[in-house]
Amino acid sequence: MLVVQKFGGTSVGDLDRIDNVANIVKSYKERGDDVVVVVSAMAGETNKLLDYANHFSKTPPQREVDLLVSSGERVTSALLSIALQSKGIPAIALTGRQAGIKTTSDHTKARIMDIDPEKMQKHLKEGKVVIVAGFQGINENGDVTTLGRGGSDLTAVAIAGALKADKCEIYTDVDGIYTTDPRIEPKAKKIDVISYDEMLELASLGAKVMQSRSVELAKKLNVDIEVKSSFKPEIKGTLITKESKDMEKVLVSGIALDKNQARVSIFGVDDRPGISAEIFEKLANKNINVDMIVQNVGKDGKANLTFTVPQTEVELTKEVLKEYENNTENIEYDTDIAKVSVVGVGMKSHSGVAAKAFKTLANENINILMISTSEIKISMVIDEKYGELAVRALHKAYELDK
Amino acid sequence: MLVVQKFGGTSVGDLDRIDNVANIVKSYKERGDDVVVVVSAMAGETNKLLDYANHFSKTPPQREVDLLVSSGERVTSALLSIALQSKGIPAIALTGRQAGIKTTSDHTKARIMDIDPEKMQKHLKEGKVVIVAGFQGINENGDVTTLGRGGSDLTAVAIAGALKADKCEIYTDVDGIYTTDPRIEPKAKKIDVISYDEMLELASLGAKVMQSRSVELAKKLNVDIEVKSSFKPEIKGTLITKESKDMEKVLVSGIALDKNQARVSIFGVDDRPGISAEIFEKLANKNINVDMIVQNVGKDGKANLTFTVPQTEVELTKEVLKEYENNTENIEYDTDIAKVSVVGVGMKSHSGVAAKAFKTLANENINILMISTSEIKISMVIDEKYGELAVRALHKAYELDK
Repeated sequence: MLVVQKFGGTSVGDLDRIDNVANIVKSYKERGDDVVVVVSAMAGETNKLLDYANHFSKTPPQREVDLLVSSGERVTSALLSIALQSKGIPAIALTGRQAGIKTTSDHTKARIMDIDPEKMQKHLKEGKVVIVAGFQGINENGDVTTLGRGGSDLTAVAIAGALKADKCEIYTDVDGIYTTDPRIEPKAKKIDVISYDEMLELASLGAKVMQSRSVELAKKLNVDIEVKSSFKPEIKGTLITKESKDMEKVLVSGIALDKNQARVSIFGVDDRPGISAEIFEKLANKNINVDMIVQNVGKDGKANLTFTVPQTEVELTKEVLKEYENNTENIEYDTDIAKVSVVGVGMKSHSGVAAKAFKTLANENINILMISTSEIKISMVIDEKYGELAVRALHKAYELDK
Repeated sequence: MLVVQKFGGTSVGDLDRIDNVANIVKSYKERGDDVVVVVSAMAGETNKLLDYANHFSKTPPQREVDLLVSSGERVTSALLSIALQSKGIPAIALTGRQAGIKTTSDHTKARIMDIDPEKMQKHLKEGKVVIVAGFQGINENGDVTTLGRGGSDLTAVAIAGALKADKCEIYTDVDGIYTTDPRIEPKAKKIDVISYDEMLELASLGAKVMQSRSVELAKKLNVDIEVKSSFKPEIKGTLITKESKDMEKVLVSGIALDKNQARVSIFGVDDRPGISAEIFEKLANKNINVDMIVQNVGKDGKANLTFTVPQTEVELTKEVLKEYENNTENIEYDTDIAKVSVVGVGMKSHSGVAAKAFKTLANENINILMISTSEIKISMVIDEKYGELAVRALHKAYELDK
């Protein structure tokens, strides 16, 4: 079996943790697997280097920032290779360049364009563990680029795709994806299997273990991901894979809570075609991430338009909407909201899932301010102070603690 | 003027020191020079990374060690580029690979084979300060190599040669080469100009500012080197350049002391042709660095052979000479010796320089155990405890304190 394993910053946080990683890799190698390992920088290194850069400039040139921070993963890859070889396991450390990872030129947020797997395949054929410095590649100028947040996950998934690996294991400091945040609901259970789409809904809704772009890439490349803990590698993690009929037996997979949204309400918008489109186009031009949108017609041919944006983008949103202040009745901004989402592919084939959500919140006297649904998700905006209560009530209602 | 500047570990030891370097470079750029800067790793970084490697193995694989330690210079080069750009000076950081530095494959001690200056020239033409990560290049496999001790000096000299730079400035924590070690003789004076050959004699004899290999390369490529202090950049340093008639006016340039040698004496060697050659060939095969050699004929057709080796190689020398124990009278090893050397191109055209050295030591009642001379150097082996006294006496005798 060919396995790609990715170890994040806390998993390689010090020399003892790197030794632990070497032991995990060794156990796979000894049972006969071929292994490619993707590593992050040791915890804290990337931020230290960014602090160095910011000492000289609040806006350091991004090409140099990439050269600077990419050194962190190089260090880890070399150390892991040394650790493995000291244990008698043949290994070789490759930089992003050497692993054939070609990216766009957008420094600090490049996208992977292509992977030439030849060098990795050659070393695998020679029986070596191939260790790749994550988070980085080169652009067409031959300059080092980095992939932005979650970049090492992305490297691992892309390599698994290029090598047609049997599995991509993402090692982190939690042992899988949970039905909800265990800090909110201690009865939260680890999910055994989840579909890409469910994971995407959970990731974008605040489950921070996997970045959406890595899950999207895994879905596109059809790469099976297992999220596991490097602290307890013997415990089975959560498998993220393509949707199957089997999964639909489970009505709801998880409950997500997002308290970083704000609600924007525009009252008395002219109810003519194109007005909403105009507003959302202007917001998009400023890269403001609009999430839920609800529009309903009021009286006198005027409509009310409500949507959510990240709290960090409220000020920018206010600027964009300034020009509408005079030709609408009122614009309100509310940051004291929470978005609670119920996610599960089972809803596709079961009715009554949404009704149960509404009833559950009603039973707790929680007022629902906005509702938005997709095939596999029901999102509800409520008063922020009821967020945790809503999560616990829904978790129980869908029997996720069983 | 095109200047190559090299800044060592203490000169880039922290963010404030890097800022200081940026100001030095900026002052050159602003007066109209083109500047290429070669940087070392921040002081302590390389050793820290080597300690990491040694945590896993006493003999870590050298290819991975090179990948590991080369990251130190990359970090400094990126930071200096950021610092310069933040001061409004266009700059670009290049890795050894990007600077076109091709080396042999000998990891951790590679030699520079070739430099392709095209990329550096392109950026210089665009008005940028080119910053190169020192100490590193790539081999024919595309793997990162490092150049060993003094590698960044070597990078700077080689680049100065490849670009036909007007000057190569080596910035360090002393402001030049001194007539002798100021810790031994406080009256030691900074030398203004010194020839390559004199510097080579001084370097190999214990003046640790410049490694011999960098001076040798400078001589070969005809690169003028100025050794300066990054702490006092306004002060003129020592110029190392090709020998000129002018230099011969100065009788003696400096006095060097080397206390790390040991004396090996073989008594009663058969006085037949080839026996010395045989012994020295065997020592050379073990990479033992034999320095001074004296041979004289004793009685009964037997010769006495005396030579010096580094103290660290005494044990290995003993092993090699074991086979001669039975067919010689005696083999003695003495580590309590010091080698004092008087260096100066002036001796070529002046007589009596050696006689003055012998007389000076005699006046101090210091017995000379061995003598060896070259065109520009007189070396004398004496009892170790008289080393400093001899240096001070010679320094005075040749009026180096004037």
